[in-house]
Amino acid sequence: MNSTGINKKRRVVIKLSGSIFNISDTYAKQDSIRRYAKMLVDISNTVQPVIVTGGGEIARHYISVARSLGSDEANLDIIGIEVSRLNAKLLVIAIGDTAYPQVPENLEQVTLAAESGKIVIAGGLHPGQSTNATAVLIAERIKASRFLNATDVDGIYDSDPNTNRNARLFKKLTIQECMEILRTESSMAGTYKLIDIVALKVIERSKIPTRVLRSNVSAIKHAIINHNKFDVGTEIVVVEPIPR
Amino acid sequence: MNSTGINKKRRVVIKLSGSIFNISDTYAKQDSIRRYAKMLVDISNTVQPVIVTGGGEIARHYISVARSLGSDEANLDIIGIEVSRLNAKLLVIAIGDTAYPQVPENLEQVTLAAESGKIVIAGGLHPGQSTNATAVLIAERIKASRFLNATDVDGIYDSDPNTNRNARLFKKLTIQECMEILRTESSMAGTYKLIDIVALKVIERSKIPTRVLRSNVSAIKHAIINHNKFDVGTEIVVVEPIPR
Amino acid sequence: MNSTGINKKRRVVIKLSGSIFNISDTYAKQDSIRRYAKMLVDISNTVQPVIVTGGGEIARHYISVARSLGSDEANLDIIGIEVSRLNAKLLVIAIGDTAYPQVPENLEQVTLAAESGKIVIAGGLHPGQSTNATAVLIAERIKASRFLNATDVDGIYDSDPNTNRNARLFKKLTIQECMEILRTESSMAGTYKLIDIVALKVIERSKIPTRVLRSNVSAIKHAIINHNKFDVGTEIVVVEPIPR
Amino acid sequence: MNSTGINKKRRVVIKLSGSIFNISDTYAKQDSIRRYAKMLVDISNTVQPVIVTGGGEIARHYISVARSLGSDEANLDIIGIEVSRLNAKLLVIAIGDTAYPQVPENLEQVTLAAESGKIVIAGGLHPGQSTNATAVLIAERIKASRFLNATDVDGIYDSDPNTNRNARLFKKLTIQECMEILRTESSMAGTYKLIDIVALKVIERSKIPTRVLRSNVSAIKHAIINHNKFDVGTEIVVVEPIPR
Amino acid sequence: MNSTGINKKRRVVIKLSGSIFNISDTYAKQDSIRRYAKMLVDISNTVQPVIVTGGGEIARHYISVARSLGSDEANLDIIGIEVSRLNAKLLVIAIGDTAYPQVPENLEQVTLAAESGKIVIAGGLHPGQSTNATAVLIAERIKASRFLNATDVDGIYDSDPNTNRNARLFKKLTIQECMEILRTESSMAGTYKLIDIVALKVIERSKIPTRVLRSNVSAIKHAIINHNKFDVGTEIVVVEPIPR
Amino acid sequence: MNSTGINKKRRVVIKLSGSIFNISDTYAKQDSIRRYAKMLVDISNTVQPVIVTGGGEIARHYISVARSLGSDEANLDIIGIEVSRLNAKLLVIAIGDTAYPQVPENLEQVTLAAESGKIVIAGGLHPGQSTNATAVLIAERIKASRFLNATDVDGIYDSDPNTNRNARLFKKLTIQECMEILRTESSMAGTYKLIDIVALKVIERSKIPTRVLRSNVSAIKHAIINHNKFDVGTEIVVVEPIPR
Repeated sequence: MNSTGINKKRRVVIKLSGSIFNISDTYAKQDSIRRYAKMLVDISNTVQPVIVTGGGEIARHYISVARSLGSDEANLDIIGIEVSRLNAKLLVIAIGDTAYPQVPENLEQVTLAAESGKIVIAGGLHPGQSTNATAVLIAERIKASRFLNATDVDGIYDSDPNTNRNARLFKKLTIQECMEILRTESSMAGTYKLIDIVALKVIERSKIPTRVLRSNVSAIKHAIINHNKFDVGTEIVVVEPIPR
Repeated sequence: MNSTGINKKRRVVIKLSGSIFNISDTYAKQDSIRRYAKMLVDISNTVQPVIVTGGGEIARHYISVARSLGSDEANLDIIGIEVSRLNAKLLVIAIGDTAYPQVPENLEQVTLAAESGKIVIAGGLHPGQSTNATAVLIAERIKASRFLNATDVDGIYDSDPNTNRNARLFKKLTIQECMEILRTESSMAGTYKLIDIVALKVIERSKIPTRVLRSNVSAIKHAIINHNKFDVGTEIVVVEPIPR
Repeated sequence: MNSTGINKKRRVVIKLSGSIFNISDTYAKQDSIRRYAKMLVDISNTVQPVIVTGGGEIARHYISVARSLGSDEANLDIIGIEVSRLNAKLLVIAIGDTAYPQVPENLEQVTLAAESGKIVIAGGLHPGQSTNATAVLIAERIKASRFLNATDVDGIYDSDPNTNRNARLFKKLTIQECMEILRTESSMAGTYKLIDIVALKVIERSKIPTRVLRSNVSAIKHAIINHNKFDVGTEIVVVEPIPR
Repeated sequence: MNSTGINKKRRVVIKLSGSIFNISDTYAKQDSIRRYAKMLVDISNTVQPVIVTGGGEIARHYISVARSLGSDEANLDIIGIEVSRLNAKLLVIAIGDTAYPQVPENLEQVTLAAESGKIVIAGGLHPGQSTNATAVLIAERIKASRFLNATDVDGIYDSDPNTNRNARLFKKLTIQECMEILRTESSMAGTYKLIDIVALKVIERSKIPTRVLRSNVSAIKHAIINHNKFDVGTEIVVVEPIPR
Repeated sequence: MNSTGINKKRRVVIKLSGSIFNISDTYAKQDSIRRYAKMLVDISNTVQPVIVTGGGEIARHYISVARSLGSDEANLDIIGIEVSRLNAKLLVIAIGDTAYPQVPENLEQVTLAAESGKIVIAGGLHPGQSTNATAVLIAERIKASRFLNATDVDGIYDSDPNTNRNARLFKKLTIQECMEILRTESSMAGTYKLIDIVALKVIERSKIPTRVLRSNVSAIKHAIINHNKFDVGTEIVVVEPIPR
Repeated sequence: MNSTGINKKRRVVIKLSGSIFNISDTYAKQDSIRRYAKMLVDISNTVQPVIVTGGGEIARHYISVARSLGSDEANLDIIGIEVSRLNAKLLVIAIGDTAYPQVPENLEQVTLAAESGKIVIAGGLHPGQSTNATAVLIAERIKASRFLNATDVDGIYDSDPNTNRNARLFKKLTIQECMEILRTESSMAGTYKLIDIVALKVIERSKIPTRVLRSNVSAIKHAIINHNKFDVGTEIVVVEPIPR
């Protein structure tokens, strides 16, 4: 089927925040993972999801111990990547047969895994690169039609929603507006977690439609099925400069 | 120097219980790891230590979540191995230049790493095999002169020391006596953690002098420096059958 | 087809004794291998066979020379594994297109190979582990519905059939009964070859229905097709303890 | 010697512009490469050089063809990396025995190669990452004492020296000043080639002393030997915020 | 579908001269590659093409610089192989979804890639082996029904067509006649590029029908579709000795 | 020591006939291997030996069975290579600490292994290439000063010594004379085993002094120590054409 290229599903890359793996209570944790697994199997009838998982709390724990033992920073990145792969493995297990059984470790392995038509789950790939940036690179490489960045907030705001009750959520932003927000000192700290400049530059060069939204099974599902509605999260729009 | 084979140090394989990586308080954890690192650097003036680390609490957490998500058992073994390698990496960082920089992932890599003359730190190697059994296999492959199994108890007892206040610690046991104890139903549960039957069979086939002792920097150091004294832990003695 | 998970065949892991590769006469040897290949293609209409081959005589020859040259035991295990992979390769050739073309060398490769839906042929995987134990680990990892251990005897007996003419073949044994037999000194030597304690422990933890039978194309075929009949070999039954 | 950690030379990472591999005339090209090789052997008496080579013209040619054939951008990064490794190989050949014979392809291989004490030559490592950023990551990982970025200009200017005859070369810049210059739209295009924001962020997190200078054998040699003089290129200074 | 072995297409190995990648003008080069890509997609309806690309001009440039820098010859072979893989990658990009996404680097990877049923594009595989010889080895390994050697001349002549206007093109040659021509000093230089003695010996041992023809999209297409006509190029015929 | 390039020993590549591994009696076999091991350790005081072992009888047995099962020829080459690596492993074991512990599987691994300064033992490397040709490629890549081809005859004769009692052994031959002998039909069969045309072409391009001699510990030792005497075997001389 894939070999004929007919009826191949559109691919969507979803970055899942490491926070869904954070719960230290075993039962609650497996419950959280199971709901994400079910949602991914559901949407796999419509698109081929390719997932990148974050490292979450356990990554931060290992990184903090390693740093205090004198680790260089590049090695900390590698440790974070390894924990994110353990998280990816949990999701592969929860999904079962519909998932590709291996957690790919570089772009070439991601490409071969995506050929299977199954749901692919990766962790981080390269030290020195946020999982956001990695997810966009993967989106480029497998020619995904969309990138969803599922985070711990509802999207990108005009000011910090934690301190400003009147902070307004953007429904759409151009890449340029998004970069401008990144550059503004005050909002940088919070926004940085949502999307970093490397990720934005890759989105820009490949013009990959991107949505930043809260990590939540129904929000993600909605954003996949109704991708033309802009009622959840913030869509980062890639606009071509108007030729004169 | 190594290439001439002159003055090569004796090699000692030490299995370190995952419990030394358990402390969830970052400061206490790095302190524990740092003390083990220092001890290993100290003894590396006398012998070449080759370490196998266990997975500890974080391994048990991942395994428990994975199992409740429906993982097969072989995959749980693999997850445990991956966490033990993260622990190994922490120890490599703490030791610094005196440690081989890579955590080897199979027997061939262990052999090449040991060639460097540096302290080598591995985690688990093979699914379906306890880290004890793996440590003994490594001892065989690199022709180590001794195997130290650093555990959470003082050694092997004639009954469970937790329930029997008069339990007596063995100073020496033959392999055959040790196996007999493993076979006795009542003591099995506790003893199993100390040493399993596969590990014992490998010790037997290669006649590797083995000490089971409490994981404690001064006890380990003492057992290395004064290996002919039998005042810490239980020595498992390999005796040849007397020919008639 | 596999990607939808519909109509996927049950998987059966079969450990084939190295003895089927023993014949030193080229013609007789290829004839023996060809009959096994044909049988495997036949049963692949009903189940997906995943095979683990032993090393046989040539493995024993290399191991014996290597030991007399001073090899450590772990290296002997590795040599045995490499010969078993050569045997696996012969079987891949004999089966042709219906076989996965690569002999997988670790559990991850076995998992990816099994995804193809083809007959998968492996040799040993890990030093320090019998091919029986490896076969059961593979059965766990690929969620096989059954494990068949094809050996050089008809199954498990209550005493040694070579010395006791009245030895009785068990039709069914529980894991516990099987372990008890392993523990009985007298029968151990012979039984050991059939199934070892590590293999039994893996069977127990994953509750994989297991049959020990004579390696013989018609017996194997019969045991696959009529897996609910207990008229060939010994079925090792995994019984859940009755809750009170 | 390395195993004792005594007398280990300081390590310096040097990013070499791909332009030194550009000359299409074979004789001139080998002459250019040979002069760099000689300089590296010379400075290897003082420091251990670890080199990252760029892709240059041939990389740009392959990338341009691949892009016009419809390649995704991530694949273009990979192609650029592969050409940079061919350039690295030429430098290994020119240096001969004093160079590590393999061109390492990831951070772990770089670390093991650096253990040899020889001159290490890498190309790019990760797609989505400039060779500058990769060079700084390597500097982190191998705990280099300095990073030299050898480019096609004399250093960082306050305005574009190509258009403004009065452009002034900075002798020292803080990371913060450097980032400010990157943010200034007008100077961005030219400066981008010198150093990108990811590279700067890695320099900042690991506080690696960095010099941007013109790629020229005598300038590089001077900057290594007289690293406390600030008479060639621009030194990017990492200043700790003054605690109040 | 492949897993059942039904309806599998015949495989044809085509060696493509590096010269189709030679054009230094980006536009003309991508145009040349695109026409080959389109032809391969066309014939993939009839057969499964497996391609081996040569290194061409850029390979020769790198090799010439490396040789003048003192490279050993085996390393030059490796450099040539790496450039041929870059060319292969361009062709993979131009073909798109119908091509296997990875450029295989050894015979095992080729075999697994061919299992996908897609068009497979490799470069060279082994130092010390011409891409012709490699292509024939691949043809053996994947049981290809034909080998097409697309070169820079129309086929094999009885004398050098560049100097003898009356040189006659052979329509058919036996392996033995072909070897005889290779042995004749005068014609050797030119013929050597067409087919070397190692390639011929592999053709002979596996009796692979082989056509030497000019690299030209319509000629290649014609030779695939009308493989029983002998109106383009020279067919090397494998004749069995007549038994007496 | 190696890192300074001072006092590095000359390297000599020796191809050992698979026949020294042929003896089916375990005791005689280990005795034969042990004598070769001792000789190699002896000469390693003078030169660094890099060995390539053949496959011998067991390779021929596996190849013959695989061929009768329908294997393609390239796969037979791979099987032969794998058996030659098992033989190499036996030699590594017999040599012990003075040998590099890994059997390298490609030219890059050979190069890294040779860096260790130890005795390196490889088997075959590439399908479609004789172990002779592989040995010469290795000689090129590691810049060996000599190649010794230890065979089952005393050297190259002017006619078949098995049938012609007056056959004369050549003490020296030029490459051109050697090729001429290869081309002569009658002597080809026997000579082919000694040295093939690919090996000769590699010897020619890299001008590696080569000796063909009988595989015999004292002959090999003599040829290494007294390499300027021409009293054992046949020296293949690389003469530059005299410029006119």
